Amino acid sequence: MIKIGLYGYGNIARGVECAVKQNSDMVVTCVFTRRDPSTVTTISGAAVYKADSILSHKDEIDVLIMCGGSATDLPEQTPAMAKHFNVVDSFDTHKNIPMHFENVDKAAREGGNVGVISVGWDPGMFSLNRLYGSCILTDGADYTFWGKGVSQGHSDAIRRVEGVLDARQYTIPVEEALDAVRSGSQPQLTTRQKHTRECFVVAKEGADLARIEKDIVTMKNYFDEYDTTVHFISQEELDRDHKGIPHGGFVIRTGKTGANLEHNHVIEYSLKLDSNPEFTSCVITAYARAAYRMAQEGMSGCKTVFDIPPAYLSSKSGEELRKEML
Amino acid sequence: MIKIGLYGYGNIARGVECAVKQNSDMVVTCVFTRRDPSTVTTISGAAVYKADSILSHKDEIDVLIMCGGSATDLPEQTPAMAKHFNVVDSFDTHKNIPMHFENVDKAAREGGNVGVISVGWDPGMFSLNRLYGSCILTDGADYTFWGKGVSQGHSDAIRRVEGVLDARQYTIPVEEALDAVRSGSQPQLTTRQKHTRECFVVAKEGADLARIEKDIVTMKNYFDEYDTTVHFISQEELDRDHKGIPHGGFVIRTGKTGANLEHNHVIEYSLKLDSNPEFTSCVITAYARAAYRMAQEGMSGCKTVFDIPPAYLSSKSGEELRKEML
Repeated sequence: MIKIGLYGYGNIARGVECAVKQNSDMVVTCVFTRRDPSTVTTISGAAVYKADSILSHKDEIDVLIMCGGSATDLPEQTPAMAKHFNVVDSFDTHKNIPMHFENVDKAAREGGNVGVISVGWDPGMFSLNRLYGSCILTDGADYTFWGKGVSQGHSDAIRRVEGVLDARQYTIPVEEALDAVRSGSQPQLTTRQKHTRECFVVAKEGADLARIEKDIVTMKNYFDEYDTTVHFISQEELDRDHKGIPHGGFVIRTGKTGANLEHNHVIEYSLKLDSNPEFTSCVITAYARAAYRMAQEGMSGCKTVFDIPPAYLSSKSGEELRKEML
Repeated sequence: MIKIGLYGYGNIARGVECAVKQNSDMVVTCVFTRRDPSTVTTISGAAVYKADSILSHKDEIDVLIMCGGSATDLPEQTPAMAKHFNVVDSFDTHKNIPMHFENVDKAAREGGNVGVISVGWDPGMFSLNRLYGSCILTDGADYTFWGKGVSQGHSDAIRRVEGVLDARQYTIPVEEALDAVRSGSQPQLTTRQKHTRECFVVAKEGADLARIEKDIVTMKNYFDEYDTTVHFISQEELDRDHKGIPHGGFVIRTGKTGANLEHNHVIEYSLKLDSNPEFTSCVITAYARAAYRMAQEGMSGCKTVFDIPPAYLSSKSGEELRKEML
């Protein structure tokens, strides 16, 4: 059994507990939290310890899954823990991945551990599909669309607008843009042409709805480059109809082949997810197995999904995989 | 420059020549044929030699791409050549892959070479998507659909029917089956429910069309388990409207997550290919680069797409890939 520790206990950690239940070669042994452990009840029944006691639990952990946020938690915690444990994280601030890689690589090499970073669906499975697609159809273009799904960051941004009590924002890919991409015409698409944004907003009683709407649709970096729709609804409606955290999207690579580039090809990878964090947790769990196996083979250092042979994700042997899946 | 040799000169070899032109770190140096070399003109202008002279051209080849057929050529040729060269093939007889793997592994280890087998889209990219999907959504099911596309094997089978001059057979996935799979209901589907077969047949003058149709739709292993449609057309129509070799298909994995398995997820990978052999050749070309890099690192033995880190397919460095694609 591969012993999994969880560092932090939020949506991702709970998702990993559920995913590990579906993998018979793994068990969640312990959870580490900055909160008072007595206030935390785990789904799996795993023991809960104070985060700062982790080094006294080394023999309970084969792979430590880092479940904090990308903004401030993971940049500190993943390198710190990679010195002592094999780790997997879902660091998703794309522009800081190179720096994060260097930090984790240094720490993991020092500790003789494996650190797998930026695991999930984007970065993660979408990245893999961008890579495979571009290596196969070298004369082509790739496109990533997100949605339909809830953007937590955009929902949070709306909640900071004066007069807003609560909000939920959906990112929606534009169907015409998807069709144009699938045609193989390799269109140049602006931000506005690729996605629209739909906002469900609960306003304070008596708030100026027109001003709230204007504040939202003109918000720099979040909404100003998009066609944005704002719907004012009640808290009851928001809780009833917009409770889930669905997401998904598309990675499409199109390219040309042939002596005269006369043939078009379309590779499309898509996800339709009822629960964004639970799916992310499933990907992390599979890569935790890979981290364990790489460490068993004596590897160390930082790895991403690009560096890991697909077979390492599976509990099946090479023989079984070739027989059943190739 | 990675020096590519081609063993055999048919559709796949010509596709590789076109693909290599699109990859600036590779060149096709030579082609080996059982025919008289003076009768073969290559697209790339590469030298053409007699197949049995290949060992005197060892220094012209970093990776030898095996371009023969899976029925009789590759089972013999890939192991024989893996003793002397890094090789890549597209062996696609699924049930014989384990045996082929063993043969190529033994030969490649003897020679200290890398042998990559069963590269293409199925086996190949579809296999990868079956593997990734099953490792992520462990409580789920996967489905592979082929088409719409030309099946060469089925077209050949029709041509062997008495009274048939020429034929082209399309495999077509059933839209309702695709929709049922995408719903996440994990339906049990029969062969008949998944695909239909559409045949365009040129009959000899005066042939008994009703008998030909009956011979086709009742043909064991090829058509008897499918709903098959037969259209009789002229040779001119066949040549005009059915000249291409398009293909494609879908790998769909659906699965459930959550404490009570309350969330559904759908992973879908699809290909829409104007030219089946050219796309296969593009995949082979990317894996030829991987074979070269693995050999450079001192690896040897047989590998499949399951064993190869995705980054090895790319000419870009790890730093570039993390920065641009993760």
